[in-house]
Amino acid sequence: MPKEQIESAGIGPRELVRRLVGGLGHLSNTVQSSWLVDLCQRFYGFEDDAITLDNWETLYDQAEATMASADWPSTVLQKSNVSAVFLTNDFDDTLEGFDTSTYIPCLRTDDLVFHLAKPEVRQRLSAASGSELSGSLESLRRALEQRFEHFIAHGARACAISLPPDFCPTPVSDGRALTALDAVLHRGLDADAPHRAALSRRVFWTLAELCDQYRLPFDLKIGVNREVNRGGVHQGRDLYDSRVSLIQYRELFNTFANVKFPVSVLASVTNQELVSYAWIFPNVIPNGHWWYSNTPTYIRHDAAARLEAVPRNKQIGYYSDAYKLEFIAPKFEMYRRILADILAENFIGLRGWSETQAIELGTQVLRGNVETIFPDLSDAPPTAAPLPSPATAGDRAVAGAGFSAAAASSGNASATEDATGLVSDPVTGELTWPVGEQQEFEADYQLDRESELPEPYHASPLPDDLLEVIEQDDEAFGGEPPAERREEPL
Amino acid sequence: MPKEQIESAGIGPRELVRRLVGGLGHLSNTVQSSWLVDLCQRFYGFEDDAITLDNWETLYDQAEATMASADWPSTVLQKSNVSAVFLTNDFDDTLEGFDTSTYIPCLRTDDLVFHLAKPEVRQRLSAASGSELSGSLESLRRALEQRFEHFIAHGARACAISLPPDFCPTPVSDGRALTALDAVLHRGLDADAPHRAALSRRVFWTLAELCDQYRLPFDLKIGVNREVNRGGVHQGRDLYDSRVSLIQYRELFNTFANVKFPVSVLASVTNQELVSYAWIFPNVIPNGHWWYSNTPTYIRHDAAARLEAVPRNKQIGYYSDAYKLEFIAPKFEMYRRILADILAENFIGLRGWSETQAIELGTQVLRGNVETIFPDLSDAPPTAAPLPSPATAGDRAVAGAGFSAAAASSGNASATEDATGLVSDPVTGELTWPVGEQQEFEADYQLDRESELPEPYHASPLPDDLLEVIEQDDEAFGGEPPAERREEPL
Amino acid sequence: MPKEQIESAGIGPRELVRRLVGGLGHLSNTVQSSWLVDLCQRFYGFEDDAITLDNWETLYDQAEATMASADWPSTVLQKSNVSAVFLTNDFDDTLEGFDTSTYIPCLRTDDLVFHLAKPEVRQRLSAASGSELSGSLESLRRALEQRFEHFIAHGARACAISLPPDFCPTPVSDGRALTALDAVLHRGLDADAPHRAALSRRVFWTLAELCDQYRLPFDLKIGVNREVNRGGVHQGRDLYDSRVSLIQYRELFNTFANVKFPVSVLASVTNQELVSYAWIFPNVIPNGHWWYSNTPTYIRHDAAARLEAVPRNKQIGYYSDAYKLEFIAPKFEMYRRILADILAENFIGLRGWSETQAIELGTQVLRGNVETIFPDLSDAPPTAAPLPSPATAGDRAVAGAGFSAAAASSGNASATEDATGLVSDPVTGELTWPVGEQQEFEADYQLDRESELPEPYHASPLPDDLLEVIEQDDEAFGGEPPAERREEPL
Repeated sequence: MPKEQIESAGIGPRELVRRLVGGLGHLSNTVQSSWLVDLCQRFYGFEDDAITLDNWETLYDQAEATMASADWPSTVLQKSNVSAVFLTNDFDDTLEGFDTSTYIPCLRTDDLVFHLAKPEVRQRLSAASGSELSGSLESLRRALEQRFEHFIAHGARACAISLPPDFCPTPVSDGRALTALDAVLHRGLDADAPHRAALSRRVFWTLAELCDQYRLPFDLKIGVNREVNRGGVHQGRDLYDSRVSLIQYRELFNTFANVKFPVSVLASVTNQELVSYAWIFPNVIPNGHWWYSNTPTYIRHDAAARLEAVPRNKQIGYYSDAYKLEFIAPKFEMYRRILADILAENFIGLRGWSETQAIELGTQVLRGNVETIFPDLSDAPPTAAPLPSPATAGDRAVAGAGFSAAAASSGNASATEDATGLVSDPVTGELTWPVGEQQEFEADYQLDRESELPEPYHASPLPDDLLEVIEQDDEAFGGEPPAERREEPL
Repeated sequence: MPKEQIESAGIGPRELVRRLVGGLGHLSNTVQSSWLVDLCQRFYGFEDDAITLDNWETLYDQAEATMASADWPSTVLQKSNVSAVFLTNDFDDTLEGFDTSTYIPCLRTDDLVFHLAKPEVRQRLSAASGSELSGSLESLRRALEQRFEHFIAHGARACAISLPPDFCPTPVSDGRALTALDAVLHRGLDADAPHRAALSRRVFWTLAELCDQYRLPFDLKIGVNREVNRGGVHQGRDLYDSRVSLIQYRELFNTFANVKFPVSVLASVTNQELVSYAWIFPNVIPNGHWWYSNTPTYIRHDAAARLEAVPRNKQIGYYSDAYKLEFIAPKFEMYRRILADILAENFIGLRGWSETQAIELGTQVLRGNVETIFPDLSDAPPTAAPLPSPATAGDRAVAGAGFSAAAASSGNASATEDATGLVSDPVTGELTWPVGEQQEFEADYQLDRESELPEPYHASPLPDDLLEVIEQDDEAFGGEPPAERREEPL
Repeated sequence: MPKEQIESAGIGPRELVRRLVGGLGHLSNTVQSSWLVDLCQRFYGFEDDAITLDNWETLYDQAEATMASADWPSTVLQKSNVSAVFLTNDFDDTLEGFDTSTYIPCLRTDDLVFHLAKPEVRQRLSAASGSELSGSLESLRRALEQRFEHFIAHGARACAISLPPDFCPTPVSDGRALTALDAVLHRGLDADAPHRAALSRRVFWTLAELCDQYRLPFDLKIGVNREVNRGGVHQGRDLYDSRVSLIQYRELFNTFANVKFPVSVLASVTNQELVSYAWIFPNVIPNGHWWYSNTPTYIRHDAAARLEAVPRNKQIGYYSDAYKLEFIAPKFEMYRRILADILAENFIGLRGWSETQAIELGTQVLRGNVETIFPDLSDAPPTAAPLPSPATAGDRAVAGAGFSAAAASSGNASATEDATGLVSDPVTGELTWPVGEQQEFEADYQLDRESELPEPYHASPLPDDLLEVIEQDDEAFGGEPPAERREEPL
């Protein structure tokens, strides 16, 4: 389906849904499409097993009406058995206006590591931290440290970043870092690529030091190449190069033995390395099944390998990576069936475990390890202010089911987007819940539409029962294409 | 089994078969061997489950007699439920003398992209296109374009090429291309490697432009290293380096958004990238299970991943890649059992599909997508001339079952080869049906025996029912070892 | 569990076991832990299904008593149905004092290829071979050849080496080799990295020539990066980079067509290449499931791919790689269940084989191929001297079950170690049985504690029945980090 048909301005939500439904038939085999159908059945009373041009409008109306009910988000969380959600938040988020015990903040650092050459990112950092970047490494570290303090005071439980396949974190000497910082401060995006790369590595290393200092887990999502499909729809442009190795992280894992590194990998072929590194390094923790590896065949293979070789207390089975709350339940349902299958075949069958033992293991990787791996570090009580209700607008019903991406990615804040507050990825069906400061992004976005689409927060739940979600940003994680793939002005 | 025992001249077909049968016992576990036994049972009345020194001669005689019947190829196609076969044809093939509605031409371009430095390839191009390579880029493009017109007028439905793991297609500027062309025209194989590589990329890019212009799908077979096993038997020399990424093709996929790229990958570890790129790029189409990935374990894993994440209308389940018509049925039989297994377990079992839904999906990927992905582009009526009957020679019976490779690869057109017209790959058991102009190849072949074995066409069927074959050349695909692995005279 | 808690000197064996048992609970899901429980049940009368702080001491006492019985190693071999064990021996091992028909020697060459720059390695070579390294290539070759003769005279059946992912064997000209040898002889570890690398390739190539000359199989274990986890426990430091390709070995496999190369790969993603290279190269033999690929999920996938595409007479199904004799049976038991599963599903189920046929195939890859692949090359009768009894010390019971690594890796020959003679890998649970000359190692060890831990022999059995073990050193295989990862003095 041509991008123009779904991402141009002025398409009303109903018309947009109609257009998208026309293309759904070819996706009926995909697991992504099954999540959409599942959530419509689960939350909107849908009774068919496919959304077609014959039944979509009834579904649209049903969903619209259902979501108009009071406090729909809470209803979704409750129906999904979700107790809390891990967000990912821009580094300058005020973290105010929502209940941080239900929506747990996480410090997202892509902009700091990869985009510090952009004047607006430096301005945001100065403004948020109240500390000007003077050109000294101390001022840079102070600004970053202030952000750690701010986030931890507001209940943050992780620092997170997504990393391209060619990123290789190593320490950068003060001298080199100072030269690089100087170049970036004076020339911004015109600074030479080696300076920008050196500064990236330095900022990354400083973040690891701060994670160590503040006992914050450092959540690594390894493998994304940004903007590979340049003509793709919003959040449908990133791909990867499966030729990545965790050997690139040996210095990091060795140096920061006390920092927990939950690691997600994009390609299933990297999963065995993840298993092996987690087997050997006490601080490496396999984390969920991410993005292009989040389909049953790869989950089956990868999860089985982890369950049989990585200590049971240092793996996080799954996070839904949902962009809309409604997607949490179907995605976890998929994982749980696969997990049950593995436990039945490999543990009860091959290894003679009892059913009770198998369920205990499943429960632990699904739900039991999160609190120990991501402990509450904050002394401050969570804010009690209610969350801005993002899911009560009338046209959210089907938008919430994957149909309103155009609004978000068009770059024009259309009425639709404003009204619903929710955007979705038409490729993966993942839903996004934008919260907070869009202004700086918008300005930036005008400058560089391709690489600077506003990247809203997104939410996933922390379930009470078996369900457990550590929300991680995937598609929406920042990051530019790696240096050598960009046009670099000299 | 030493190569000399099966590839030296003067071994009669019966003696050759006897020798080969002696080595079959050690292969009885392989799926390739199971195809051979299956076809003997299916077509030649063989009733045992292994070919041994005790029963081979009876089989030989039975097969010989069976294949002597009138129009045996048609009988095989009919018994195999095959409606048409996709060939791969040398760029200078006249495409005359056979029914192009049953044997559908396809423009194979390896020689043009990788061997243009050879004088004989340029001569073939000039002769076939009627257009001298004057040294201008226009004359080069004109010659290539003439070949597109010729092929399309004769019913061609695809342009195809096999590519080494280190190939990275990018546009080459006119200036650079002109320098490269000049070097190659003047120095031929003595042109510097960078010039030859630049010209390769330029020709490849021009082919993509012509595919765009003529709406011809561009069939990419990615990953072959040629002549790795230098002492191997004919078609038993090529291997691969699994460290290849589709990121190398990002420029191509982005630039030619309207060209369909059916993609085959050699290594199963590349399959997840293929799935992901097909998920994101509308013009990337996973295509069959090729060569070293064409065994049950890899098919099972790779096909399941595609079926659950790639839109159902843009994947081609299988092509048999048979070198003899008799191999089509056993190979498809293998695939269909695996496909049925995936549909039963993953779709009916895990996802609750009905049997009808599952069969519809299976039928579509097996048979339904080929006409839409490879439409008939020709206005000219297909030629009605009967195909030269390649399978009526008396000694073809067992030769057709994988035993006569020596003749083809010996470089000496022996009586055996002339009589049977059929050659086989003793490693994979795949059979080859040489058709057309061997003369130019022969001349070349005398110069460079190792890399220039004659590469005959080979045929696969397009079945009426579930069976669907998009024939692609594998082992016989041209291509030299990549530049840096060759001895380059300066 | 912090390394200091288990590797510091002066911890008695009982206390050490107590400490380790406290951490076992988190490993209860791992297959490695299941081997430990299995062997305790199998050999020490343990009746629970987990070793806990409540039951460990009883188990400790039971095991201690059991292992005090006369000739316990023979009892283990007999109970495990093991007829012989392949060792790996240092190149200067005298190979005396044990029965080489039960404990079959194998020439381990890591030190020769990668550590010849160390004075002590050269001294060991001179001393053992009785031939001074004069600076000529002839003297080097003569010394190596003498070692081949020594080993073959003592019943050796293989030459073995483990190789880092970036190793790419190619021939080195005499001139280049001479320069390199000169640099290494004069400067030792201060020789430039390119000289050391050239000498490594030359020695490796010479070993291949000697394997050719003496008909000794050359056992390659490809993919280890040493000392990745610098703070890890003994034998818990090595990892890998899965980006390795057998294309790096094309020259080797082509040049030495008559040398058998049993190949083990560290990463499952390399297994398809191994299958394909074994399919094409007569001298490439897939060998077992090694280390990080030795868990059920990867064995299942990798073994199935081999069984369906590699000739049945040129694959070795499994070796246990046990560091203690007691681990052989549980590890083979795991493999056999998986093998049975593959045979039942893929051969009897999918391909319609009879049960008898399937069992024949299973028996062949488990037990039938070893004698033909590793024939007895020695005319000398095996020495009849009894093996020094390594498993009769009282505190070996639980030590033999994975608890006494500290002693070995502490670098202090503690009373515990002396008494038991057995050490184990606390990560994998694999047990090591040190035999022979430790003196030279000890001296070396004092110089470079991190990389020069004493690496004892270890033993695996060659079973009478289905069980078959080709013992290969993994974790204990020598080898430094590849050149570019080391600090190289210039």
